[in-house]
Amino acid sequence: MLKHGAGGRAMRRLIHDTVLDAFHTDVEPAGVIGLSALDDGAAIRIGDRWLVLTTDSHVISPPFFPGGDIGRLAICGTVNDLAMMGATEVLGMTCSVIIEEGFPRRDLDRILASMRAACQEAGATVVTGDTKVMGKGEIDGIVINTAGVGMTAHVITDRGLLPGDRILVTGTLGDHGMAVMATRHGLALEAVLVSDVAPINGLIRAAIDADPGAITAMKDPTRGGVAGVLHEMATKGRVGIVIDDSAVPVRQTTRGVSELVGIDPLLVANEGKAVMAVRADAAECVLAALRAHPLGIDAAIIGVCVADHPGLVVLDTGFGRRLITEPDGELLPRIC
Amino acid sequence: MLKHGAGGRAMRRLIHDTVLDAFHTDVEPAGVIGLSALDDGAAIRIGDRWLVLTTDSHVISPPFFPGGDIGRLAICGTVNDLAMMGATEVLGMTCSVIIEEGFPRRDLDRILASMRAACQEAGATVVTGDTKVMGKGEIDGIVINTAGVGMTAHVITDRGLLPGDRILVTGTLGDHGMAVMATRHGLALEAVLVSDVAPINGLIRAAIDADPGAITAMKDPTRGGVAGVLHEMATKGRVGIVIDDSAVPVRQTTRGVSELVGIDPLLVANEGKAVMAVRADAAECVLAALRAHPLGIDAAIIGVCVADHPGLVVLDTGFGRRLITEPDGELLPRIC
Repeated sequence: MLKHGAGGRAMRRLIHDTVLDAFHTDVEPAGVIGLSALDDGAAIRIGDRWLVLTTDSHVISPPFFPGGDIGRLAICGTVNDLAMMGATEVLGMTCSVIIEEGFPRRDLDRILASMRAACQEAGATVVTGDTKVMGKGEIDGIVINTAGVGMTAHVITDRGLLPGDRILVTGTLGDHGMAVMATRHGLALEAVLVSDVAPINGLIRAAIDADPGAITAMKDPTRGGVAGVLHEMATKGRVGIVIDDSAVPVRQTTRGVSELVGIDPLLVANEGKAVMAVRADAAECVLAALRAHPLGIDAAIIGVCVADHPGLVVLDTGFGRRLITEPDGELLPRIC
Repeated sequence: MLKHGAGGRAMRRLIHDTVLDAFHTDVEPAGVIGLSALDDGAAIRIGDRWLVLTTDSHVISPPFFPGGDIGRLAICGTVNDLAMMGATEVLGMTCSVIIEEGFPRRDLDRILASMRAACQEAGATVVTGDTKVMGKGEIDGIVINTAGVGMTAHVITDRGLLPGDRILVTGTLGDHGMAVMATRHGLALEAVLVSDVAPINGLIRAAIDADPGAITAMKDPTRGGVAGVLHEMATKGRVGIVIDDSAVPVRQTTRGVSELVGIDPLLVANEGKAVMAVRADAAECVLAALRAHPLGIDAAIIGVCVADHPGLVVLDTGFGRRLITEPDGELLPRIC
């Protein structure tokens, strides 16, 4: 079902029951962070460093949307997944394009030019690729897979959170999901709502350099949104998380669309943001480094990790507290 | 058009005019064998070794065929591409599955089990992945992308051929393409015709170990078949190639189907074979090593590189000589 691709509970269950079961990877060999970690990518120890490897297929509909297109998304998705593991320098990327017979050549050219521009922003290079064509009606337009490799001395996982750590986000939330949703529903908005799709490896590098070792866990809130990511991080790190509603940065336009369509911006995809847990004593320093970067000016400390209620994410609204539930079902199919 | 995915001249032109043009990679940085090489994968120098990186999306129809399935194909395709660059040990693989809403769970389980079995044969591990679901009618069944990384001290490219080198193939030709074609057309055959899909990194390692440095160029004859690969190798190496028709190993059943459907087995895909150029003085030694391996018992020396007619591939039939033309147009869409 569509919900099995939505990034929430159904997808997690499917992956557990099929992929992890098939590959029997409950225990990884030493020096490997592999499938069973279900992190943003994998890491393999090579000498005294780690090779980080990640992949994503991009099926977004429509392929062109305000603020980006499937090509930019395909580069940023993989660059950002590498960065989430600490590999902010990209060694090389692969690009595999699957096109429907009859897909316009000018659209392909536009998408490839956009990939190239995103690569330049990220300091990344596509070094190898693959092209397949499927018959008319056998695939809807274009699908792009990218994989990437990077190297890092220190891997950052999504499970290292400790009670007391602060939760930071690198900018406004929900922009990608709401921009695509507004496009699909043909909403005429007063202000322009654009996707946040961007390569944030430079931003993450700035945050790491500000205080190496201060980031205890990191993840990018794509499918399933910030709510999904916080749930996963809380569960894996066995901590509770309390979010201060008033501190969560959401653009006015995004908030407007979210109220119009009745979907919480915390539940929808971002494509140029990170959620990080940071040691309390370093939180202000890392925040300052993020805000000094053009892609991090709206960064904010939005919450704190607690020893109580491990695995649960609580929203403090100022009037009271409520649980943020893990997304389930199908919110926005083909959002990335 | 479909022919732009067929592995022949049309695909090469499309890639030149779109991908290479977009990424402006006429010249690669030092220590990188990248896109412009259009080899089986890319290689990036790390210290005194090379990291090899490759990717393929698999769109084969039907997903289950005699001798294999899309899962086995997805693992073998990437393992073999790494091996073709000399990286016979796989560091790690990615697996990205795109499924049509309603795709049967039992088929997915069967495909994943098959991937796992192929990984075990290859000594490879899937370390990270991605799952997407597209709506009913938005993708035909299932598409699987794999990427892989390996390391090698010496990269083997597809362009190192020198006049005098012998051309070897590691076994019978055309089995995969003809098996899929027979299935699609519902041909009732007397004998069973099965795809050759297999991970041949162990076989290639045996050949390399037999005489390190003797293999001057290597490529696996998938889309476009042996004819396509020989053309590419002859063009890139600026040599002519003369093939001895009587030495080309083709199974009786494969030959039969090929005559029935009127398609030369040299033009169709193989998924467990390699074409290699080997120094003349080492050819018998490498051949013996191939034949001593279970996947190489039908290996044969089928031709020789010559200084004459660079870029052209000539078939010597015993009665005369004719050009083997590069495949063009659409022979067998969705063959891999």
